[in-house]
Amino acid sequence: METQEGSASKPVIDFHGIDEELIQKMAYDALVWSSLHGLVVGDKSVQRSGKVPGVGMVHAPFALLPVAFPENHWKSACEVAPVFNELIDRVSLDGNFLQDSLSRTKKVDVFTSRLLDIHSKVLEMNKTEEIRLGLHRSDYMLDEQTKLLLHIEINTISSSFPGLSCLVSDLHRSLLKRYGEHLGSDSKRIPSNTTVNRFADALAKAWTEYNNPRAAVMVVVQPEEHNMYDQHWLCAALKEKYPFHLYNTHNVTAIRKTLAEIDKEGELLPDGTLLVGGQAIAVVYFRTGYAPTDYPSEAEWRARLLMEQSLAIKCPSISYHLAGTKKIQQELAKPNVLERFLENKEDITKLQKCFAGLWSLDDSDIVKRAIERPELFVMKPQREGGGNNIYGDDVKENLLRLQREGNEEDAAYILMQRIFPIVSPMFLVRNGICHKDHAVSELGVYSAYLRNKDKVIINDQCGYLMRTKVSSSNEGGVAAGFAVLDSMYLT
Amino acid sequence: METQEGSASKPVIDFHGIDEELIQKMAYDALVWSSLHGLVVGDKSVQRSGKVPGVGMVHAPFALLPVAFPENHWKSACEVAPVFNELIDRVSLDGNFLQDSLSRTKKVDVFTSRLLDIHSKVLEMNKTEEIRLGLHRSDYMLDEQTKLLLHIEINTISSSFPGLSCLVSDLHRSLLKRYGEHLGSDSKRIPSNTTVNRFADALAKAWTEYNNPRAAVMVVVQPEEHNMYDQHWLCAALKEKYPFHLYNTHNVTAIRKTLAEIDKEGELLPDGTLLVGGQAIAVVYFRTGYAPTDYPSEAEWRARLLMEQSLAIKCPSISYHLAGTKKIQQELAKPNVLERFLENKEDITKLQKCFAGLWSLDDSDIVKRAIERPELFVMKPQREGGGNNIYGDDVKENLLRLQREGNEEDAAYILMQRIFPIVSPMFLVRNGICHKDHAVSELGVYSAYLRNKDKVIINDQCGYLMRTKVSSSNEGGVAAGFAVLDSMYLT
Repeated sequence: METQEGSASKPVIDFHGIDEELIQKMAYDALVWSSLHGLVVGDKSVQRSGKVPGVGMVHAPFALLPVAFPENHWKSACEVAPVFNELIDRVSLDGNFLQDSLSRTKKVDVFTSRLLDIHSKVLEMNKTEEIRLGLHRSDYMLDEQTKLLLHIEINTISSSFPGLSCLVSDLHRSLLKRYGEHLGSDSKRIPSNTTVNRFADALAKAWTEYNNPRAAVMVVVQPEEHNMYDQHWLCAALKEKYPFHLYNTHNVTAIRKTLAEIDKEGELLPDGTLLVGGQAIAVVYFRTGYAPTDYPSEAEWRARLLMEQSLAIKCPSISYHLAGTKKIQQELAKPNVLERFLENKEDITKLQKCFAGLWSLDDSDIVKRAIERPELFVMKPQREGGGNNIYGDDVKENLLRLQREGNEEDAAYILMQRIFPIVSPMFLVRNGICHKDHAVSELGVYSAYLRNKDKVIINDQCGYLMRTKVSSSNEGGVAAGFAVLDSMYLT
Repeated sequence: METQEGSASKPVIDFHGIDEELIQKMAYDALVWSSLHGLVVGDKSVQRSGKVPGVGMVHAPFALLPVAFPENHWKSACEVAPVFNELIDRVSLDGNFLQDSLSRTKKVDVFTSRLLDIHSKVLEMNKTEEIRLGLHRSDYMLDEQTKLLLHIEINTISSSFPGLSCLVSDLHRSLLKRYGEHLGSDSKRIPSNTTVNRFADALAKAWTEYNNPRAAVMVVVQPEEHNMYDQHWLCAALKEKYPFHLYNTHNVTAIRKTLAEIDKEGELLPDGTLLVGGQAIAVVYFRTGYAPTDYPSEAEWRARLLMEQSLAIKCPSISYHLAGTKKIQQELAKPNVLERFLENKEDITKLQKCFAGLWSLDDSDIVKRAIERPELFVMKPQREGGGNNIYGDDVKENLLRLQREGNEEDAAYILMQRIFPIVSPMFLVRNGICHKDHAVSELGVYSAYLRNKDKVIINDQCGYLMRTKVSSSNEGGVAAGFAVLDSMYLT
């Protein structure tokens, strides 16, 4: 099994022989670079840092060096991105498929149930979304045993880090330019990462399609947001392309509103125009709304419904949101389901090749096997947001409990093949301190899709996010402090 | 007295009629801009923020809008900058003038006395600084009564904000581009400010003159520095010109050392080369060493002497440092003293025109007048650093006390004409909050001077710093929290 992909396990530099002084010098330079170039987040330990920009800033956690990644895998992940885009669009149009596939989940998961209610209401309205915008991120891991790049999930709502991920690539390029000689590495092997511009382009093009020069892009945000600078970079790129001082392009106005504010200030004109605080909205871009905690009261649900009923372009629409749920992804992984949505056999093969095993808990053979070998599976709750995955013996215990109880709760979970990613020693910089640890990396490939009726305007990959986490951590939430932002060094 | 300069009192926009909502929107945008573009300082309330880059950052305090400033005054301040540069250089070469003028100060001010000791030692060595580099900032205020732009002081050591001042000009330009229509103002009237590149150019050109490709620029820093990002911007510009991504020019290595570290790691080779931690130093750039508190022990004084004895280019040399003391500036303001250093009559007139009244305390007529009308004078201690100026009735009391005591302490002070700058309502943004207050502004004009023997390589103004402070505050220290960074809008 010693194939060429084996090179992925080789770090960019030899971490054992590395000079500690050089690492500390690079870490210092990297911290300075981050501060000067806006690679920052709100520091949760500082009051107001999630509310007011400019106060309580700290550098975003980052890996000191890019992670080695096989070029062929990167290329195939880019190639398959437009196919995922197309798939999500097709699935979103099949209201019955969404409702049917999620019918059991609906009974046990209140959150999915509320989303499905909104979906039903817009189905009843016989409303078609003519302009459809998707800003997705597909997450992958490289499995050490099979050397396969396996698809973990596609995020169709609120994909984070389109802004900061570009900066990390720039940071690493700058470090390799300065220290590449000492490290024996070449900054040109870090692929260019322009997600922030590509996402801004897509938002601006959607805005153009909406065709009301006085309408704005509305970013729907959480009341408190420590990752606000990532969002601000995207809004800044709506004004001027990154790197700045060079271009002055879109000049699209962006406003930020919470779901509660939208409930309070929002109204629907008879022609379907969405007004928020008197401002017409062309595009609604969600950076919240994906987790039950984002809807603490009925106000937030009312806001979501109001937007969905409007003519504004929703990124995502309720259908795109549902098409990205884990349950739907598990349905799509079943034999002969992709064929329902895609014609091109090659595209179908490409997708299937990267799907990790995904099963519902009504597949008794798989449940049996997972009870026998729980270490080979991950039990995932249907809901999004991360942090609740079940691993190891807990998989067995939970499956046995669900069997004993015999209720419908099993519909709230799916089973997924556990991927064993390559573990490498890495330097992780958090809170101004550089530590060495064993870590695994997850690749996220951003993609954008925009169509107006029959015209596909954008369908492309847009850049990438590499997230590296200490290997003892099972979760991948960078914002939660378990992982750091990273980039890739093609091998 | 209603002359054309009267327009300086007119703010850029009508602050009385301004829409509060617009101000809040602009302040929010400005805070975001500052965070993304590195207009930041270390937040003193956060531990480690003065030591470790990337932690405990907060936006630098800034004025929301540029201050109106008469174009003719700006032009004359630029014109006179090379004359000041030349003057400082000439004065620095006249060791006897420096020693004689400061002889009384020496007796009462330990700090000046220590500087003079170092100066004497290098005079005894018969050492000539062939390559001389000055990075100065001349500070001015516009006097409301006379409508004159009066020179307050020239800083020949550790002029702060060459980095952040450029960013504030960019911030204001960006705001006026976006909101200029609402404000009736034009972003093009903010003069371009490239101090950071010009200073980096000067440091790099000095490094080139030193002619040792393996030598570095050493930034001498305080052990704890909350204004470190200003310094980092300058060091970054030594690598790549600002705005980045465009050029890759100097590629000069910069290292940062405290005086204590230099004492510990520094050595002088027999040929005069300065080594610090084994690294040859081409240029020593001081961002500390100007105040008594910068020398808490003999170690720091040893480091200062070591550097002075070396062949490294000092920015500033001990002579440049002394030439910038208030006492020397007061000597230069005396009749017929400028003529000793400058030949060109026009140049002399230009300088005299902008000198504010400056007197020593052995001028009994002036002391008498200052006791009668203390409100027209400021009593300034000889030492640098700000914060100890004496105003109002305290001037009278202190002068009377010095007369009573009859000792030499009066040599520790100079008297200066009190300038009454124009007070305008301004919006000041600090710690994420925008307040309206009455404020006055002080213009700083950066200039660079580099010569090698008879060849003057650089002699030019380099950009500006505008500092705006609430008018109740007598001091101008932005870092101390009394003032904000600003830019100018030419009228």
